[in-house]
Amino acid sequence: MELQLTSPLDMHLHLREGAMLDLVAALSARDFAGAVVMPNLVQPVDSLERLAYYGAAVEAATSNYTFAPYLTLFFRAYDEATLAAARPQIIGLKLYPDGVTTNSAGGVRDLGEIEPTLTIMERLGIPLLVHGESHGFVLDREVEFLSVYARLARRFPSLTIVMEHITTAAAVALLDEYPNLYATVTLHHLLITLDDLAGGLLQPHLFCKPIAKRPEDRAALRSAALRAHPKLMFGSDSAPHPLSRKESSGCAAGVFTAPVILPLLAELFERHDALPQLQAFVSDNARAIYGVRPPAKTITLARTPWAVPASYGDVVPFFAGQTLPWQVVTRSND
Amino acid sequence: MELQLTSPLDMHLHLREGAMLDLVAALSARDFAGAVVMPNLVQPVDSLERLAYYGAAVEAATSNYTFAPYLTLFFRAYDEATLAAARPQIIGLKLYPDGVTTNSAGGVRDLGEIEPTLTIMERLGIPLLVHGESHGFVLDREVEFLSVYARLARRFPSLTIVMEHITTAAAVALLDEYPNLYATVTLHHLLITLDDLAGGLLQPHLFCKPIAKRPEDRAALRSAALRAHPKLMFGSDSAPHPLSRKESSGCAAGVFTAPVILPLLAELFERHDALPQLQAFVSDNARAIYGVRPPAKTITLARTPWAVPASYGDVVPFFAGQTLPWQVVTRSND
Repeated sequence: MELQLTSPLDMHLHLREGAMLDLVAALSARDFAGAVVMPNLVQPVDSLERLAYYGAAVEAATSNYTFAPYLTLFFRAYDEATLAAARPQIIGLKLYPDGVTTNSAGGVRDLGEIEPTLTIMERLGIPLLVHGESHGFVLDREVEFLSVYARLARRFPSLTIVMEHITTAAAVALLDEYPNLYATVTLHHLLITLDDLAGGLLQPHLFCKPIAKRPEDRAALRSAALRAHPKLMFGSDSAPHPLSRKESSGCAAGVFTAPVILPLLAELFERHDALPQLQAFVSDNARAIYGVRPPAKTITLARTPWAVPASYGDVVPFFAGQTLPWQVVTRSND
Repeated sequence: MELQLTSPLDMHLHLREGAMLDLVAALSARDFAGAVVMPNLVQPVDSLERLAYYGAAVEAATSNYTFAPYLTLFFRAYDEATLAAARPQIIGLKLYPDGVTTNSAGGVRDLGEIEPTLTIMERLGIPLLVHGESHGFVLDREVEFLSVYARLARRFPSLTIVMEHITTAAAVALLDEYPNLYATVTLHHLLITLDDLAGGLLQPHLFCKPIAKRPEDRAALRSAALRAHPKLMFGSDSAPHPLSRKESSGCAAGVFTAPVILPLLAELFERHDALPQLQAFVSDNARAIYGVRPPAKTITLARTPWAVPASYGDVVPFFAGQTLPWQVVTRSND
């Protein structure tokens, strides 16, 4: 049994830089036709110069593949000239409330101060991508942030706003309330709950931000993904950390899913009799929402068992060492 | 400034066996006049023979100190002769629903089957100590179990039932509903919430079962402890694991608090102007509830900074490497 996907897209991806970029970029670039690349490097991508530097680095690391990196700019108060110059090179600006996730220090503290930049973005047609968490109790952060999404969606009705890596039933419900509000959802949030992280032994390789939530939240996310809700896109948030940063006394947030995404999505959609919706979830919805035209690429999966490696370099992947029923067998351009 | 405590008691303690027993027992035996010692060894303490073996091992490991180990028997369907013979050597039976925590495999699966044993315990005046968690979603397990406590308290009105290491506001509220229902609370559940475990970097040394809950739960636990609620006792649930079992891909549940308990309790009670209630919380309530008469022992703390060691052997303590305002300065028998 085979399954073909046309130009799958990962609309939320961490590629890092340096040696880690070299290690992980190929794993996404071989399976996907394009990906939205996050700008939260240790020194964020927050200027035209940084954008040129990082664009070249990603280009070099993925040059063996048919792959379009959709770059993002770390949200700051930019002037119109800067945004106009950046526009052809980026898919959007990524907004982080200060300090809520990996390398988000220096993000936005006061949401009132961001309005001039949003006005320019709305005029130029540059989407806003948001890590939407408050600074509250870890399980409440996303839900507490939803009123901010609602306020922004009302105040900037022509601005495309993407709620990144949503994890709650409440966020899914909000999707239908504002026409300019969209979302990405990760593979791991479709598969795990807080029980998988902390219900038995504590599993640092499943620790991520936003933290995995309750079973009913996962059910709402799954339901929306499996029916390919047209405002929901796949975005892995695949976030590699070296083993020493995961199995340690202060474990960094991030699940490294890049190598296993398409096999696990195939299994999930097959299990729920939803394979016909996978193409829309993993590509077509994003094309419609962002208006992107990814390079032509056909990925073929076969229902043939595949043992996930225990690690890639010093990075432990999601489902490390486990055997999956599907695997990618050919990656060809049309 | 000094603070004296008379015969403090730790009413829930894991001493392990072998080398770990030798490492940790002294740390409790020097600061406490007695402790309720849990029976969930790899091979549980579930027979008169095991009780004799473990009693001798604990006695040997604490022989340099004025310290009364109050042993417990791992709950099984015992007959009356066994319980009558065990009674002089134990403070109670500890019931674990099967598989919910460290070394609880082989615990009770069907609560209906335990009634004959409870009937004997009630007649003999042997208390029931319970790890009260369901097999549900990790954050709901304690609250889901509360109806079991209520049912047992009603059905066995003369049985002393202790809800061990409570973590929720709902459990605190249940204390006042049944005269034969009591509870222990740990140091770490008075100090941390899920935010401390997983709100920033993931902290495996703060991972425990039951998992730390919400801020409002901690507030209810604190309020009851700080006013020395007469049905609430201190029980540390101090649970040492070697470093290799904590900073690993499957981290064991347990916080090792034994060496820092009295200094941190002093700080907490002082901060809330509740120092006069500490004696009741850490000793008198337990004496009244269990009718135990611990050996006379005076522990004196001084408000002098103390740097907590980074580790004891290969076990990392709570607040490792941090400086506390209080320390134990003398441990004398009256």
